[in-house]
Amino acid sequence: MHSLLILSRRAADYHRLVGAAQLPDLAITSTTDAEEARARAGEYDVMLGEPSLFRHVLPAMTALRWAQATWAGVEPLLDPSLRRDYILTNARGVFGGLMSEYVFAYLLAHERRIFEKHASQVAGRWNATPPGTLRGKQIGLLGVGSIGGALARTAKHFGMRVRGYTRASEGCPDVDVYFHGDSRVAFATNLDYLVSVVPTTAGTRHIVDAALLGALPPHAIFINPGRGSVVDEPALAAALTDGRLAGAVLDVFQQEPLPPGHVFWRTPNLLITSHTAALSAPEDIAPVFIENYRRLLRREPLLHQVDFELGY
Amino acid sequence: MHSLLILSRRAADYHRLVGAAQLPDLAITSTTDAEEARARAGEYDVMLGEPSLFRHVLPAMTALRWAQATWAGVEPLLDPSLRRDYILTNARGVFGGLMSEYVFAYLLAHERRIFEKHASQVAGRWNATPPGTLRGKQIGLLGVGSIGGALARTAKHFGMRVRGYTRASEGCPDVDVYFHGDSRVAFATNLDYLVSVVPTTAGTRHIVDAALLGALPPHAIFINPGRGSVVDEPALAAALTDGRLAGAVLDVFQQEPLPPGHVFWRTPNLLITSHTAALSAPEDIAPVFIENYRRLLRREPLLHQVDFELGY
Repeated sequence: MHSLLILSRRAADYHRLVGAAQLPDLAITSTTDAEEARARAGEYDVMLGEPSLFRHVLPAMTALRWAQATWAGVEPLLDPSLRRDYILTNARGVFGGLMSEYVFAYLLAHERRIFEKHASQVAGRWNATPPGTLRGKQIGLLGVGSIGGALARTAKHFGMRVRGYTRASEGCPDVDVYFHGDSRVAFATNLDYLVSVVPTTAGTRHIVDAALLGALPPHAIFINPGRGSVVDEPALAAALTDGRLAGAVLDVFQQEPLPPGHVFWRTPNLLITSHTAALSAPEDIAPVFIENYRRLLRREPLLHQVDFELGY
Repeated sequence: MHSLLILSRRAADYHRLVGAAQLPDLAITSTTDAEEARARAGEYDVMLGEPSLFRHVLPAMTALRWAQATWAGVEPLLDPSLRRDYILTNARGVFGGLMSEYVFAYLLAHERRIFEKHASQVAGRWNATPPGTLRGKQIGLLGVGSIGGALARTAKHFGMRVRGYTRASEGCPDVDVYFHGDSRVAFATNLDYLVSVVPTTAGTRHIVDAALLGALPPHAIFINPGRGSVVDEPALAAALTDGRLAGAVLDVFQQEPLPPGHVFWRTPNLLITSHTAALSAPEDIAPVFIENYRRLLRREPLLHQVDFELGY
């Protein structure tokens, strides 16, 4: 018999979805409250939940064997002071569609001058300024995992040229050219759009720095639906303020919610989307848990295991 | 020997592109000015140009054998008072990509709440309201020619369900269900998005009327990048004003530019894009002319011939 703790703001949805699967040998407890979960934490050997809540219960989960995170990012669980004597799996392969919608919403809004057209309309002015097009434009993907691959596929659908920057992998058929290691500047040269979807690791911290931003053409747009830690925020604010970069769309930040006094609230040509690019939907994540539970019962390797050293 | 008149606001671009093809037995004259063109109009047997300019020269073009329009819409040439004793070909199969960019720019802007997020940002407010998604939503295409087919393909890329309303054709593999004839209301029921890309014909005039709009759910959005004549404009303004329709994005109108006093300038939840959805690019249209000229020399049927009675 296994004992599952569901700890999530969407606990009721997860309980319903996992319960409907009628998994064998599984007792389910669910709560939205980390305090409440802590009371009986020693009883659970399986966990499904949000890393930010889960981290508070983790020290008391003495019987824990496996935890399925509902997020892609597991930073709250990587603190070296926390236990690592369990299998941690994250959510992967389910965010590509939403991330494509997010990124291409803003790419198309830029090309089609959506805000400018609207401002003209408010002024009662017929504005026949020709729009741009994505066709033939060049997009650079910092990171080509399952999300980067989905972005590359959508970019190809719209006739774009696609560059990828990865540690070593070159497996995506929709990426035209790959860059690695110290070829960051060559990667950024002549990009129309730069999109960061790399995870937080030691190697990606502040990878979007003054040098990378300086290699982009001044008409380029930077979009970050990935991780806030990859951006040197003062360098980005300076590039936008000085007009060395045409625009940025940021979903994630080093501190969230973005503090009231942060320079980004008054940086020109910057759009802030408040960490909503690809919210975990229980309908997407529950099947990942269910598949992994069945693997656990069959003593097969679980999908999407996190390497605590690599951080993803 | 053939004698070509190019009459377009982009005359220089067309002259350069057609000239570069080094077509045999072809003398090229180009101008942006219909008055100037009229002076020697009797000399030309071939024409390449914009229907709105071309119509003024047409009566004087006594030797005209074939005219290639740079637009998809040829309404200016369908006036029954004008000659029809020549072959008219239009631009087809080149607008699907741009139309997809236009339509999906606004669908994604709606789902991702782009304007709402921006208003929050201007107010210094972190707005984590969850966005919507195109996945699983239902789009209805009024008209499934080459543009409708391109829209259906993009809709499928984003995981949407696709309905098509056509006179009779059912040839597009990306349309899930077809509707014809008097099943307009059934077609509109339960649509999340309605997009009109039908040409102007007797059968499509005011096809988007109070009955069709009334069949849409109140959360639906109507997008018209096609022809202004298909819309009963007062009925659309009333539906938006009364909240029976969530929004509309209009590129085309019965009168353009939209007159200053028009009700649409003060209709809520309406976006006006000033006939820029898919502007003819000489780089796209010149190859159509070049291919057709080669067919003319080989005495083969020309592509994209307009039926003056059908109107497309």
